[in-house]
Amino acid sequence: MDAMGGDNAPESNILGAVAAVKELDVEIFLLGNKEIIEKKLDEIKYSKDKIKVIQCNEVIENEETPVKAVRTKRDSSLVVGLNMVKDRQADAFVSAGSTGAILAGGLFILGRIKGIDRPALTGVFPTKGKGSVLLDIGANADCKPKNLDQFGLMGSIYSKSILSVENPKVALVNIGSEAEKGSDLYKAAHELMKNNENYNFVGNIEARDIPDSEIDVIVCDGFTGNIILKTTEGVVSKMMGLIKSAILSDIQSKIAGLLLKKSLKNIKSSLDSEEQGGVLLLGINGILIKAHGSSSSKAIKNAIKQAKKFHDSQAVDKIIDYAQKM
Amino acid sequence: MDAMGGDNAPESNILGAVAAVKELDVEIFLLGNKEIIEKKLDEIKYSKDKIKVIQCNEVIENEETPVKAVRTKRDSSLVVGLNMVKDRQADAFVSAGSTGAILAGGLFILGRIKGIDRPALTGVFPTKGKGSVLLDIGANADCKPKNLDQFGLMGSIYSKSILSVENPKVALVNIGSEAEKGSDLYKAAHELMKNNENYNFVGNIEARDIPDSEIDVIVCDGFTGNIILKTTEGVVSKMMGLIKSAILSDIQSKIAGLLLKKSLKNIKSSLDSEEQGGVLLLGINGILIKAHGSSSSKAIKNAIKQAKKFHDSQAVDKIIDYAQKM
Repeated sequence: MDAMGGDNAPESNILGAVAAVKELDVEIFLLGNKEIIEKKLDEIKYSKDKIKVIQCNEVIENEETPVKAVRTKRDSSLVVGLNMVKDRQADAFVSAGSTGAILAGGLFILGRIKGIDRPALTGVFPTKGKGSVLLDIGANADCKPKNLDQFGLMGSIYSKSILSVENPKVALVNIGSEAEKGSDLYKAAHELMKNNENYNFVGNIEARDIPDSEIDVIVCDGFTGNIILKTTEGVVSKMMGLIKSAILSDIQSKIAGLLLKKSLKNIKSSLDSEEQGGVLLLGINGILIKAHGSSSSKAIKNAIKQAKKFHDSQAVDKIIDYAQKM
Repeated sequence: MDAMGGDNAPESNILGAVAAVKELDVEIFLLGNKEIIEKKLDEIKYSKDKIKVIQCNEVIENEETPVKAVRTKRDSSLVVGLNMVKDRQADAFVSAGSTGAILAGGLFILGRIKGIDRPALTGVFPTKGKGSVLLDIGANADCKPKNLDQFGLMGSIYSKSILSVENPKVALVNIGSEAEKGSDLYKAAHELMKNNENYNFVGNIEARDIPDSEIDVIVCDGFTGNIILKTTEGVVSKMMGLIKSAILSDIQSKIAGLLLKKSLKNIKSSLDSEEQGGVLLLGINGILIKAHGSSSSKAIKNAIKQAKKFHDSQAVDKIIDYAQKM
């Protein structure tokens, strides 16, 4: 666990780790400035045999060029942590730090799985029920058809492993439901996915249907995935703002607001990603989770839980097996 | 005006046309089945000197291949109407029929403006104030950098002409604010747009910032534009559904719902596209407006209003002038 990355670090990271060892059968290495971390730990009760602090002397800033930062800052928490995963001293690495550096670190230090051309950032989108696995949400702005096909396979394994879906339905984002719709990339990807027998491809899904869909895995390129996630974030935030000003507009509405307070909070949390914890870089040799930059201690704890679930399900080995077949 | 296209045709189309001639200084040709149209007209009061009915014997169905339909059904309301615009018998054509056929008709019958490689479907997205011009929202799933640059110019002219914005701010959709972010297409487009002196390019806009932005013109490829619009539609509809079930959950919430009824309706309409009327195919020799398939008579009337405004502002001539310079 990177103790130093994220807007609320190290506080939330440390509290999240402490909550995780309480709730789950895990041991945690907290990586970063030992003095700061231990001072914080001294203030709280925790199982000393389950949390170890490892001193790292360098810090990767958000503004740095990711590849350069990963290559030169060998004593940063990111590089030290990923090397621990590589050397099998740790089973997973969780960080709320810079996405670019995390992607670069995953690729350079842990490396791609043989047969997977492009690892994908994978998250869970709040749809119906358990939510839908959405990938790629930002690792690859430019994709080839075979990348999308591989995302379908990896997403299917993720859905089985983390969300316990038995035969996940995999769909391709597109601007129409017919196979011949969309850009050249999406037409070619549809063709490949339709013919891939390693997962259950059910056809195209239009963006309008995503928020309320019962599809388990939704595949797109990283540019489009980012647009879907960020548009959703923007619209939810705008609507919440409109509702808030409506409620504050007069006495009558203020009363209504009080009566609805709990329900509105539930709506917001049902559209929230905090429950999920983080996004996984799928397709590398190891488990690497990027927690949201503004993660609370609860989000950090859930990211660790997600890492453990992914580890216990041996999903990485499953991807390695399938990738060889494709 | 295509009297026959759209889910609520011919009723809404006819009522919309009648409302338009009452409110605006326009004359309308209603194209379609003369018998049906005149029967409906007989039931209502309208200015007989301002509405003429033209018999068309063919109908283009949603399921037909657009290009083939436009080439073979010479006596459909779409083909007859576009030929009237081409022959200067009419100043604009409005239809709520099949998007594919409308696009194909615009390209084949009216033709591209010289210097504009790809016409773009252009709509107004409900943001702050007058809303933001968004293009392309679905005409071109595959784009080249120069297409996006031309969309910037055309969007800027649209914003000046229809929304009366003086020096429209033009931004490029992207997955980050920095110039070097995004896919190869978006990086190259950014470079072209930055150096184009024919409009006011202000840089990238992230999807999260679109719903509440003060940018006047938002440029993207047609695949991405469709994703932005449809994701917004899906999220708004999901949230409205969640609010509705929250309000119906118990007595207390039902009371709150009654108190907030008007405000919630206002929120929905502030996110609604009905006020705008339709989307314009920009970059062809003439004015062609695609009204939403489920257009009410009000939406049809607003589409006609939009056509008149675009005509009065001589925006097509302005695009022709600028396109020669680029």
